[in-house]
Amino acid sequence: MPLAPSELRVLVEAYLDELALTPELGSLSEPMRHALGGKRVRPVLCLATGEALGARPEGLLPAAAAVELVHSFSLVHDDLPSLDDDRERRGAPSVWAQYGEATAILAGDALLAEAFRLALSYPTGAVARELVEATLGMIGGQWLDIRGEGARDELHRLKTGALFSASVGCALAAVEVPAAEQAPWRAFASELGLLFQIVDDILDGDGVVLDVGVDDARRQVDEVVERTHARLAAIDADTVVLRDIVDGLASRTA
Amino acid sequence: MPLAPSELRVLVEAYLDELALTPELGSLSEPMRHALGGKRVRPVLCLATGEALGARPEGLLPAAAAVELVHSFSLVHDDLPSLDDDRERRGAPSVWAQYGEATAILAGDALLAEAFRLALSYPTGAVARELVEATLGMIGGQWLDIRGEGARDELHRLKTGALFSASVGCALAAVEVPAAEQAPWRAFASELGLLFQIVDDILDGDGVVLDVGVDDARRQVDEVVERTHARLAAIDADTVVLRDIVDGLASRTA
Repeated sequence: MPLAPSELRVLVEAYLDELALTPELGSLSEPMRHALGGKRVRPVLCLATGEALGARPEGLLPAAAAVELVHSFSLVHDDLPSLDDDRERRGAPSVWAQYGEATAILAGDALLAEAFRLALSYPTGAVARELVEATLGMIGGQWLDIRGEGARDELHRLKTGALFSASVGCALAAVEVPAAEQAPWRAFASELGLLFQIVDDILDGDGVVLDVGVDDARRQVDEVVERTHARLAAIDADTVVLRDIVDGLASRTA
Repeated sequence: MPLAPSELRVLVEAYLDELALTPELGSLSEPMRHALGGKRVRPVLCLATGEALGARPEGLLPAAAAVELVHSFSLVHDDLPSLDDDRERRGAPSVWAQYGEATAILAGDALLAEAFRLALSYPTGAVARELVEATLGMIGGQWLDIRGEGARDELHRLKTGALFSASVGCALAAVEVPAAEQAPWRAFASELGLLFQIVDDILDGDGVVLDVGVDDARRQVDEVVERTHARLAAIDADTVVLRDIVDGLASRTA
C-alpha cells in the first residue's frame, strides 16, 4: 500500500527536522533552518516517484531533501534586496530581513552546498548531476528575470520547470532507472511543472492571468491536468499517488 | 618528464579560457569570467598531484578547474558590500563593483554550481564529494570570520586549508587512490595550506605577523617548508614538481 502525499509530507518534515547539517557551519544552521519552510511539493513528488518505481521512501529522503534545499537556496538569494527585495516569505520575515544580508548570502550558499552533499550520499553521481543541471537552469532563469529578458515560457521552464523535472529526475537517478526508460517520466514532470506554474499565476493574479484572464487560465489548468494524467497513464508503474499529487496541485488554494 | 608548475599553469589558463559554461546562464558568463582571474595555485597543485600519481594532466583539468571555480565563487561572495565590502580584487574592480550586487550574487552561485558540474564529469562521485566538504568548510570559516568568532588557526583551516586539501584530494579522488593510501597526501596538503597562509600574512603584514613579528614569521615559513618537504619525501611517488610548488609558494612575493 503506497503512502499518500500527506504521509510522504510527514516523512519529509521529520527528515528535514532531524537533518544533521555540517558541523563546521555552526550557528549558520539557524538561518538555514529558518529558510526551510514550505509546502514540500518537490520532495513529496520525488518520494512518490520513487514509490511508483518500487523504492521505499526512506531511501529517497536524501534526494528529496536535496531538491528542497536547492529550492530554499534559490528563495533565500532571490529575496535579497538587490534581487527581488522581498521582506516576507510564507508570512514570516525572509532570511535577510530577519538575519541581515551577509547571513542570507552565506545561508543560501550553505543550503546549496548541503543539497549537493545530500545528493552525493548515493553511490551513483547521477542524483547530483540531475540536481546541478536544474540549479544552473534556475540561476539562468533568475538572471533573465532580473534583467527583464526572456519570454514567460522560457522563464517558467527555467525557474520552475527545471526543479520540478529534477524532483522526478533525482528519484529516477537514485533508483537507477536506465536513461532509455526515463522519457515518459520526464514528459510527466514537464507537464506537472507547467500545471504548478499556471495555478500559481491564478492564485497570485499575475502571469498568464494578466494575458488571458482567470477563466481562460482555469481552462488551461483543466487541459494541463488532462495531459498530465495521460502522461501518467503512459508510464508502466503504479502511479496512483502521483495522480493524487496532480489533482492536489490543480485544486490547491495556497 | 613531468610538466613544470609554469607549464601546468598554461594548461589551466587554456582550459579555463575555453571552458564552455552552461548555455542557460547566457550573458551571466561575462561576470563569471571576470571573476576567474588569479594565480592558479590550487588547480596547478591539483594537476601536479595527478602527475605525481602517473595521471596525464588533461584528465585532471575538470577537477582542477572545479577547485578554481569554488575559489572564485567564494571571493565573489566574500567581496560583497554586506560581507567584506571589497571594491577591488587583483587590481581590478571586484564583480559587484563592476556589475552590481545582484549580478555578483548570481555569478557566485553559478560559479559554485558549475564547479560541481565539472566535478561530476568524473564517473566517480568522489571528486564532487571532496569539493562539497571543502566548500562547506569554507562557508563555515567565512561565517566565523564575519562574526569575529573562531581562533585564527581554526579560521585558516577552514578558509584556506580546506580548499588546499581539496586541491590534492580531488586529484586523489579522480585517480581513484584508495582511502587507505591517502593519509600521507593529506598530511602534505595540510602543511602546504599552512605555508600558503603564513606567506600570505607576511605579504599582507597581518595575521601571524601581528602576533610574532615578521622575522619570527619567516622562521615559521622555513619550519613549515621543512615539514612539507618531509611529508613529500614520505610519499611513494614522483613528487619533484610538487617540491617545486612548495618552494615557489615559500618564496613568492605576490
